[in-house]
Amino acid sequence: MLETTIAAIRPADEAAMAAARELHGRLTKPAGSLGLLEELSVRLAGLAGACPPPLPEPAAVAIFAGDHGVHAQGVSPWPQEVTGQMIGNFLAGGAVVNAFARQAGASVTVVDVGVATPLPTDPAAAPAGSDPAALDPAVTGPAVLDPAVPRLVVASVRRGTRDLTVTAALTRDEALAAVQTGIRIADELIDAGAGILLTGDMGIGNTTPAAALIAAFTGADPLDATGRGTGVDDPTYARKVAVVRAALARHTPDPADPLGVLAAVGGLEHAALAGLILGAAARRTPVLLDGVIAVSAALAAAAFAPAAVCAMVAGHRSAEPGATVALRHLGLDPLIDLGLRLGEGTGALLALPVVTGAVRVLHEVATFDSAGVAEK
Amino acid sequence: MLETTIAAIRPADEAAMAAARELHGRLTKPAGSLGLLEELSVRLAGLAGACPPPLPEPAAVAIFAGDHGVHAQGVSPWPQEVTGQMIGNFLAGGAVVNAFARQAGASVTVVDVGVATPLPTDPAAAPAGSDPAALDPAVTGPAVLDPAVPRLVVASVRRGTRDLTVTAALTRDEALAAVQTGIRIADELIDAGAGILLTGDMGIGNTTPAAALIAAFTGADPLDATGRGTGVDDPTYARKVAVVRAALARHTPDPADPLGVLAAVGGLEHAALAGLILGAAARRTPVLLDGVIAVSAALAAAAFAPAAVCAMVAGHRSAEPGATVALRHLGLDPLIDLGLRLGEGTGALLALPVVTGAVRVLHEVATFDSAGVAEK
Repeated sequence: MLETTIAAIRPADEAAMAAARELHGRLTKPAGSLGLLEELSVRLAGLAGACPPPLPEPAAVAIFAGDHGVHAQGVSPWPQEVTGQMIGNFLAGGAVVNAFARQAGASVTVVDVGVATPLPTDPAAAPAGSDPAALDPAVTGPAVLDPAVPRLVVASVRRGTRDLTVTAALTRDEALAAVQTGIRIADELIDAGAGILLTGDMGIGNTTPAAALIAAFTGADPLDATGRGTGVDDPTYARKVAVVRAALARHTPDPADPLGVLAAVGGLEHAALAGLILGAAARRTPVLLDGVIAVSAALAAAAFAPAAVCAMVAGHRSAEPGATVALRHLGLDPLIDLGLRLGEGTGALLALPVVTGAVRVLHEVATFDSAGVAEK
Repeated sequence: MLETTIAAIRPADEAAMAAARELHGRLTKPAGSLGLLEELSVRLAGLAGACPPPLPEPAAVAIFAGDHGVHAQGVSPWPQEVTGQMIGNFLAGGAVVNAFARQAGASVTVVDVGVATPLPTDPAAAPAGSDPAALDPAVTGPAVLDPAVPRLVVASVRRGTRDLTVTAALTRDEALAAVQTGIRIADELIDAGAGILLTGDMGIGNTTPAAALIAAFTGADPLDATGRGTGVDDPTYARKVAVVRAALARHTPDPADPLGVLAAVGGLEHAALAGLILGAAARRTPVLLDGVIAVSAALAAAAFAPAAVCAMVAGHRSAEPGATVALRHLGLDPLIDLGLRLGEGTGALLALPVVTGAVRVLHEVATFDSAGVAEK
């Protein structure tokens, strides 16, 4: 499945990009006056192989949730239970990602790829603490793009990763299972009609494996790849950098072997997000990246298939320094830069209207000829 | 009317701001993780005097259009007729501002405060060239916030300003008339239900008076306040800087006399935008600023009433360097920075979902207590 997906990822269509550039020159606005939106619309034409590319509607957020053995090293001040509790909050519609998704008309799919604690079966009745065995073990239902009803998919590979300072976080098979889950979710959402996928994540402690992935794929020093996550204090931050440095020294991950890197120092949500990105790219569907977890997964996706970058749109510049390191490596300019560091998909959702607007211009704006407006 | 409006503008409500900060600390997200959105929502609580402040809906874009005597100095490669032709395009729904407004659900009101050429009476039948005398000389109809139907208001003070290199662009009475038109439009739109106003502008040559206003109000050198507008070549740019420098030397405008500055080196759309901002501030309604024309007008509004800054939200950082000079002077951080330099209100419209999202968080996100999520 992974090989088939990778083989389906093609480079951008140069003819469609040229057509988009030519059309921009005839629209009633000074040439280049829409700045980065023009380049973005040209890239999306190249991805779709059409000018104009389809409007990126409807939008679907996929939030992959997992826990992390490295939490035992004291890299986060939050208890691990919060991962499962926040899934309850997502399903009840009470999180920031839900508020932004309702505003944007985007559906929310929550995927348990490796939460450590029991999940809520009924979000209204039981925000946390009930048994996931009561749920359909595969999928709670077919993919439905309903912005009003968040959906839960249970696809747990294991209840949290192993501690990457002690051993590999995952086996290669476990990492592959998570990547394949991401590909499957992309296919399901696109089959259901999604015109754009947005990456989301939840996992207490997940900025630590993200920093390790970024250092492994870009060669950056752990100090430059590691940030303060939810806002850790100085001793915790120093511990976090040391943990990332120790993990890289122990595993010496090979960036040319992305599955190996994900297994050694990644997380289940990171691996699944890499799969989601590959799945979207294989279907020539744009994928709007959220913050540091998403861009660390995007590095893995680009290592699997360099042309997958054509499908990526960087939603925002996370406050996490590693995100900027990763975006530079991918050659992506973020659309929004507001110091966000929440995750969940919130930064991607804020950027969605910019992406839609960039494409809409090619669909709806009059030309100088058709509007009877003189040129310079 | 101007004095009454200025007298109605009050400083931010500290209690409402404190309540918004306190609420942010209880919502299910790490403290501070929404970055600048948190500060923005606190500012809007202070403006409204309530926590949460009302959702900024519906949104209304007001595009003020005017022409410029300084066009005779060769500061723009575009013919002056384009101002009136673009009004036809706005009314026919074919411009970028229309595409973005439809996407955002915002209404578009086009106000002729000083277009030099005849306006279209029927946008569908006659994109340009018919006689404005055929229109109701005051207003074509009541303010209706219909995103599907752009509306034209004719409130022409004179058919373009005088050449500011030769004489004052406007008399004080003319500048005052335009400011009062802006106040009136703000009142009409807010009376019709608008929860936020967005600034728009159209006027071939209008970045030259904007640069002069920015230099006059901030003390910046004309070289730093002047940009390439729609993309002028090197000789035109040099001419533009020289024109701004000559205008300031001729008129020596006093920044403590904003009406005098607007009359000497401004434009009718700049003066009307200053009035719109003052009118919004007096009604404690946020006003989302577009690009360099808007921020040059915002400097005038702040000179009339310093507390008007509380109502201002900087939509984006225009590619025009003068915009950054003005934003720094106003102490405003822009929400979007994508190299846009189109005007019309396009940058403000792209930023609108960020503003709405910032307020929505205070309305819709669950608290740690209510969601049963543990804190760190």
